[in-house]
Formats: sequence, structure tokens, C-alpha cells
Amino acid sequence: MKAPPGIAPARFEQALRKWRGIVGADWVFTSAQDLDAYRDSYSPLYGEVTERVASAVVAPDSVEQVQEVLRVAHAARIPLYAISTGKNLTYGGSAPAYSGSVILDLKRMNRILEVSERNAFALVEPGVSYFDLYRHIRERGLKLWIDCPDPGWGSLVGNSLDHGAGYTSAPFRDHFEARCGMEVVLADGQLLRTGMGALPNSKTWQQFRYGMGPMVDGLFAQSNFGVVTKMGFWLMPQPECALLLTAEAGRHDDGPAFIDALAQLGYEGLITSQLFVESPVMGFPMGPELARLRADWSERRVPALEDYARRNGLVFWSAPFAMYGHEDVVRTQLAHIRRRIEQIPGARVRETACLRFPLADDQLAAAPDKARLGIPSLSYFVSRFAPGAPLFEGHIDFSPVVPLDGQTLREAQDLFDRICQEHGIAPLGGRVLLYHLRAACLIYAVPVGRDPQANARARAGFARLMEVAAARGWGEYRIHPAFMDKGIGYYNYNDGALLRFHERLKDAVDPHGILSAGRYGIWPRHLRKHV
Amino acid sequence: MKAPPGIAPARFEQALRKWRGIVGADWVFTSAQDLDAYRDSYSPLYGEVTERVASAVVAPDSVEQVQEVLRVAHAARIPLYAISTGKNLTYGGSAPAYSGSVILDLKRMNRILEVSERNAFALVEPGVSYFDLYRHIRERGLKLWIDCPDPGWGSLVGNSLDHGAGYTSAPFRDHFEARCGMEVVLADGQLLRTGMGALPNSKTWQQFRYGMGPMVDGLFAQSNFGVVTKMGFWLMPQPECALLLTAEAGRHDDGPAFIDALAQLGYEGLITSQLFVESPVMGFPMGPELARLRADWSERRVPALEDYARRNGLVFWSAPFAMYGHEDVVRTQLAHIRRRIEQIPGARVRETACLRFPLADDQLAAAPDKARLGIPSLSYFVSRFAPGAPLFEGHIDFSPVVPLDGQTLREAQDLFDRICQEHGIAPLGGRVLLYHLRAACLIYAVPVGRDPQANARARAGFARLMEVAAARGWGEYRIHPAFMDKGIGYYNYNDGALLRFHERLKDAVDPHGILSAGRYGIWPRHLRKHV
Repeated sequence: MKAPPGIAPARFEQALRKWRGIVGADWVFTSAQDLDAYRDSYSPLYGEVTERVASAVVAPDSVEQVQEVLRVAHAARIPLYAISTGKNLTYGGSAPAYSGSVILDLKRMNRILEVSERNAFALVEPGVSYFDLYRHIRERGLKLWIDCPDPGWGSLVGNSLDHGAGYTSAPFRDHFEARCGMEVVLADGQLLRTGMGALPNSKTWQQFRYGMGPMVDGLFAQSNFGVVTKMGFWLMPQPECALLLTAEAGRHDDGPAFIDALAQLGYEGLITSQLFVESPVMGFPMGPELARLRADWSERRVPALEDYARRNGLVFWSAPFAMYGHEDVVRTQLAHIRRRIEQIPGARVRETACLRFPLADDQLAAAPDKARLGIPSLSYFVSRFAPGAPLFEGHIDFSPVVPLDGQTLREAQDLFDRICQEHGIAPLGGRVLLYHLRAACLIYAVPVGRDPQANARARAGFARLMEVAAARGWGEYRIHPAFMDKGIGYYNYNDGALLRFHERLKDAVDPHGILSAGRYGIWPRHLRKHV
Repeated sequence: MKAPPGIAPARFEQALRKWRGIVGADWVFTSAQDLDAYRDSYSPLYGEVTERVASAVVAPDSVEQVQEVLRVAHAARIPLYAISTGKNLTYGGSAPAYSGSVILDLKRMNRILEVSERNAFALVEPGVSYFDLYRHIRERGLKLWIDCPDPGWGSLVGNSLDHGAGYTSAPFRDHFEARCGMEVVLADGQLLRTGMGALPNSKTWQQFRYGMGPMVDGLFAQSNFGVVTKMGFWLMPQPECALLLTAEAGRHDDGPAFIDALAQLGYEGLITSQLFVESPVMGFPMGPELARLRADWSERRVPALEDYARRNGLVFWSAPFAMYGHEDVVRTQLAHIRRRIEQIPGARVRETACLRFPLADDQLAAAPDKARLGIPSLSYFVSRFAPGAPLFEGHIDFSPVVPLDGQTLREAQDLFDRICQEHGIAPLGGRVLLYHLRAACLIYAVPVGRDPQANARARAGFARLMEVAAARGWGEYRIHPAFMDKGIGYYNYNDGALLRFHERLKDAVDPHGILSAGRYGIWPRHLRKHV
């Protein structure tokens, strides 16, 4: 067993003893075997001395236990790293940002505290997974949907605090946007509730989020300033019907117009679901022939790619989306969507399914595209990768936010494609664009694995992608801990004023810096590299 | 001229001299006549020694001037109170929360910095009014709508920071929700940008609000922690058509079912506009006969009120709302709304107008219900009050947030009606319920004026309304400065943990407490009444 950096073994032992007294001896883990389960299996530093690993794990079962665990850590100045279910693979998983931190594992706190069908909300603890809440709702026959990421094994609280997103309708698919009300334990063990939760016996904690005065909720995103122990979420009422659709455009040069049309449909509220723009020609993975064609940046490139698409019977651009509501309403909306898309010669909108709710058990099992129906699944791990594509060990996602503007997105794709070629990166997943509410996010899943040399190359390519994106004013919204300092380093307007502000808050709220040291570049004072 | 409390006259004079050097001598006001224009004409303490008044006014014209003005105030420890256009009457107007503060008037900073039609956003300075932005968009023929409060003379930035709301479609009508990106000057003059604005040369500052890491925007709501000098807003694309509608129900006992039906339509996204439930029988103002009938709480009350409605040809409950989009879509949605409302015997939905956009100038002038069409106006001051209703001098709004639940809202209305009767309060405005996104807000506009004794009675009644609301778990979201300490005092979960947290942030971010002292109960350390 190794103590966290700078912590004397005897002090660490004493803290572990106290924690065992608080949470029970069975819920403090220090063995190498136990800690191995908390390693980030997608780490780009896997097996290297720089890999970020935990020194121990403490798993409390109640808010009171969280308070006591934090008081011990605060007094002993031991760094903690809170996780909910620890499933945000590609962005760090359950391993800490600061190596040697003690994992505060909240998975035992998995109580669904309230679900209101009338007012369409849920109040949950951090250990509640999308599966848990989905089952709870289905077992009771409540006319509510959840919105889940894909895969759906993560925590509602964790995903929301990490600014994750799902697939159904806005605002529910933006998981931090869909929050309402938090309970938070501060570094010194103090407990507070935000918004209307600060009013004892409040009747609208999950229904109105401002409360009175300033709003502090955003501070607790990314877990630097407190441990969230309860959180409310707005839910979508079960719709009468869902249409699953795919918009398609046939030629390389349709890309910008196709994206602009889809973007406008989003701004107008005709498309509210999440929307990918995928391409079997311009996306990933790709075979050797396509790789060769895409590496040719001469004027032969576009005709050759279009010829490739024709020979292989591939649509050039494809955008799956969904519509929810009364069937006559969504069909009337769909006619407008079709009219807009069909202004691009040859483009069309295909309907792949029309489903009415609730689904019977057999319909549920057979349902396609479950994430767009608010049904958590793990099918991502088998379905996302084309047959014959190489098996992968892990990936870290390069996720720059780019304006919703077809021409800009085309430039961005070409630029990143070039860099991937130069660095020998073959991204996984085939997913090229992903829309947030009002901005595009390009997702390049850069493969990493168990080979340190290959990982070093992947890291170099990843760093280069970050660099060229930042130079063009495109920043990432989320990143693997190995790149957090570098990533936040680009957010340096006015000499890093925002990070300095985060640090000022950190010193005030968590003066010993025991919570999530280093996460998104926010280090406690004694670990800062600058003054 | 009087210096702020605790500030030596010579120090104050010196600061005024420095400010004159920064903003120009014409933009520092100290004469009694000039300061009079900054009094809160709706103050419940009007003309009393406790009225909150300014000691001076400084009006910078640029971010750099704001920084310099703040540096002077920070060094001299002079309290400032920032206003944008100072129009939030009933919630304090342009007068400070802490009497003797210097008003930092931002109305000269009225530049519209960017309006993007493609990506549907605006970036503005705090002095930009809804009228300004509306005119800018109309003059250029941009296919965008703004969302404005009624009256529409206020500032986009000020209204948003004050958690104000408008009338068109969600999320645009929730003005803090519709923000994207801030530029902020901290108490010591440091300048930062939030979200993607922290990335120099960012291309998505107004399109993606998380940026990387925690999100601090909410802290700057209510102006305790910084002075917002730029702010982005998401705008709604101009719809093809707007339907103006009124749902109506005929009997007293229809109230709960009527509200529940409207609430469900909102949760399902069929009604996205703001929605009042008004009542010419249960609302305000009222004549003597109605006052007498409503003061009778025996079993005769309801039949007598229904008889009164019948005799006077009044609908009991009435809910104006609007729908926006393609006409065939909104008409298909409207059929579902009608079906739901008509489940209540006798209830119906009346269409009052169908408008297509853009409007010609003559259509614009004649347009009814301008706020629901995103058109700022001042007609509120003439139209909101029934003919023959007493002229008023001012009012302070009691605005409790109550669950969207018909039965609870009925209890709340009856309870508040009783208290108004007991305290001789005759609220103004006739507006009974107002929906926020997922909670109801009851608005009781309590009249105040120039008679100190009448004002004292109004304050006593107002305080009683607050007290009974809080006891039932209904808190207010916004309040006049005269009641901020009392109001925030009810938000005392866990011994006031949230306010203690606000204070801890205050001490870190504004250690001399120069910004908005006392606003929403957040006092600088040297003025706190508790330890």
C-alpha cells in the first residue's frame, strides 16, 4: 500500500482506520487487486509510471458518512477523487486526475428518492444508474421517459456533472441542462442544498432551479468544489409515438448544405433530438482503399471518394435523428423537414421505424436504436463498430466544439483528417459530428491500448489535434485527465483569468485542496505550478 | 452631498475626482436633483429615513472604464451598486440595496456587438434595452425574434441577471436560461470571460455555454460577485406564424383541473409559451361587491362567486397563451390542446389572432398582445388595469414559487386572498398565476405609494404573506431590497448553509465587499449581523 503523495504513511493509516469506522471495514479498499478495478482501462498512460492510480477507495453509504469521510480527509489533508459509477470511459473512468488520490466511490448511494409523474422529475443519489431509474419507472408503469447516454451503464449524477448528453429531445438530452436542485457536501463536511432546496420543507426543489439570489449549481459540475449527494432531473413525459428517421445526402459537396439545413431545423425546433452526421466515406473506421483515397489531397480526391461511394453503394452523408409526440403532429413537422432536406438534389429523409408507447416487453427487446427511445443498453459495445473493424482496447475522445456552420465543419473535418493521417491515427466509432444544443461537436475516438509506444504516438497526435483546434478558436468541452492541464491551458483569455478565478474559489471553498485535485486544471495551492 | 456610510468625506471626494478622470466629469452625478432620478419610485420605504438611496452615480462607457472605476472603489472600499437600465421596478428599480452605495450606471454601454442570423444569437452590453435590440433586428430585416418582458424598456443583461422572464417560447422566455457566455469585471478590476469565451479567438462563445471545467455563470446572477459587461443570448428564429389563444373554464371548481391540464400540456411541449391563469372573479383588482363576496369564507362563497360571474358575463378562469411555428403544425398541435381542455365541461380554447411574419409596419402597430409576439412595448402601463381601477403610485410584488398542481395552487390562492383581506391589501394587476418553466409563480402586486402609514401597513401585509408562504415550503424567487434579508432568512436549510457558502465566496471574490452589498442577503464581512 502506498500513501498519497506528501502524506506520511502513519497519517494515512490513521485516516483509513477512521474511514473504516465510518463506512465499515468492508468498504475501504487498499489491496492491489481491489485498486486494480479502479484503474482507467482506457488510460493513454496505461502501465506507465505516469498512469494516474488510486491509493485507496472509500465507499460511503449515506450523506452523513460522506460528511464524516470528508471531515477526516480535510483534517488529514488527504486528496479525494469522487466518482459516481465511474463509467465515463475515454474521459478518465474511475481513476483520479491526481495520482495517489483516494477514490470516494459513491456507488452504494443508489437510492431513487422521488419520481413525480405529475411534475415529471426524479431526485436521485449519485450511485443511481440509468438502468436503475429506467427499471424503476417501467416497473411502476409511470408515463415518463429518461434520457440516457449510449452505453447507458453510467450514473445520472456523474454524467450530468461531467456535461454529458443523450439522444432524445432537448432540453432533456443535455444532462446538466436537465438538472434541478442539488445537495452538496463541501470539503469540510458542511452540507448545503441549492436552489429551492435551501428552503426547509421546500415543495419545488426539483421544479424551480434559481431559488433566491445567485445560482451556484454550475460550480459543482466537474466535482472540484463539492461532492454532490442528491440531484434532481427533469424528465420527458412519455410521448404517444416516436419516429426514427435518417436524413441522407449523396455527394461529397452536399456536406455543408446538408449540415446547414439540419442546423436550421434544429434552431427552429423542428428537430429536437440529438443528431449525428455520419459518413461511411468520410468517417471512421475505414479500409485500406479508402484510407489511400482520403490521403490524396489533390483535386482527384473528391471525384475518387464519390466514385468509391458509388461502387460500394454508400450514401455520402447520413444523419439519424428522431421525433417524439402525437403522431399527426410529428408527421406534419416531418413534411417540413423533408421539404427542407429535399432542396438538396437527391437528398431525402428515410423513416426507419414508427413506435407507439408504452412498448410491450417483446417490442422493447426488439426496439432499434434504443438510446433514441430513452432505453439504456450496452449494445454500443457491439453495434458501433463495423464488421471486420479491429477490436480495440480503449480510446480517448478528442471532442472540439465547432460552430454549426457547414463550411466551417467541412474545413474542420478535413483538417483533423489530415492530422490523423500524419500521426497514423485511425479513429474508432464512425461517428463524425455530434450536435450539442447549439454547437457541433466533432468526436474523434483516438485508440489507445496496452502498448506504451503506440500510446505515446496516440498522445502526440491527440496533442496536435488539440493544438490546431485551439488555434482556430475551437475548444474542447471535456477531456481525459492526462490532457486536462494542456486543455485548460488553451482557455487562457486575459492571461488565464478564468482559471485564476477558479483557483480563488478553490482556495476559499476547499482550502486544503482535498477534492478532485487537478481536475480540469484546478490544483490546490500547494500543487500549483504557477504562482 | 453625503458620503457612503463609514467612508470619510475626503476619501469619497478623492474617489469622485478619480472617477471623473476616468469617465468624464459629466458622467459622475452627486447633486440632489440628479440622485433623485435614481430613487426607487416604487419603494415601500419612500421618503422614510430607511429608504435606500444612492450617494453618487458613476456611468462608465467601456469595459476598461468599468475596470478602472472598480479599482478605485476597491482601493477606497466604497460600496457600488451596478444597474443596467435600472428598470426592475417592484424589485428595487435603480436604487441600491445598501443605502449610500454609489450607483454604477451601465446605460452608456449600449452596444449591440453581434447578431448572428445563422446561429440565432446576440451579444450585447448591459445598457442595450429590448427596444434597442428589437429595432436593430427589424431595421436589418433579420429573421429573428427577441423575447421581452412587459413592459419592455429594461435591459437584456439586467433582466436576465435578475432571473426575469418573457412571453414567447421556452427556453427563450426564461432570460437567464437563454444566456450564453459572459464577460465579467471582478471587484478588483480583473476581467474574465466565461464558457468558450475563455478561449481566445473562440468561435462558439455564444453557442456553447459549458466551456471546459466548472461553470461559474450562475454566480454572476443577481450581481453580487462581479459586473457583467457583455452577455450572449440565444434568439428564436422568426416563426412562420403565431396563434394567440385563450383557454377558458367557466366554474370556480374547474380551477384545479384547468391548471392541471395546462400544466400537462406544458410538460408535453404542446404549450411552450408563457401562460397566465387569470380570473376576473378571483383576481385583482375588484370592486366592492366582489370584495364582500370573497371575504365570506362560508359555504355560500363559491355559489355566490359563480352567481356573480354569471350576472356579469365573466368567464371564471382564463389563460392566454400563444403558439409559434408553421401554421399546419401549430393547428395540428392545437387540436390536441383543445381535446385536453374540452375534457373539462364547458371549457374551451378561443383563437384571438393568427399572424404571419414578418409583419408590415401597419400590422405591427395594430398587433395585439405584443409581448407574446416578441415586440417590446410600454402598453403594460395603460392596459393591465381595468377601467375605473384606482391609479397607483407603485407596487412591490410578492412572487412565491408554488408547485404546478391545481389543488395546491387553489389552496395557495385562497390562503393569500385571506391574508390580503386581513391586512387590507388590494393587489393590483389582475394577474393571478404566472408559469415559469416547471413551477407556478403567484404574483400579488401589493400597492405602495407616498403615504408612510399606508406603506407601513403594506409592508406588514407583505411580510405576513412571505411568512405563511415559507411555512408551507413556497419560497419567493425575487424580492424588493427592503425584504431581501427577511426573504433569504427563510432559505435557511441546515442553519443557513447556502448563505454561509455565498458569504465564503463573497469574501474570496470581493474581499472588501464593494459590489451590491446586501443584495439577496449577501453582506460583506464588516456589515454582517451574524458571525
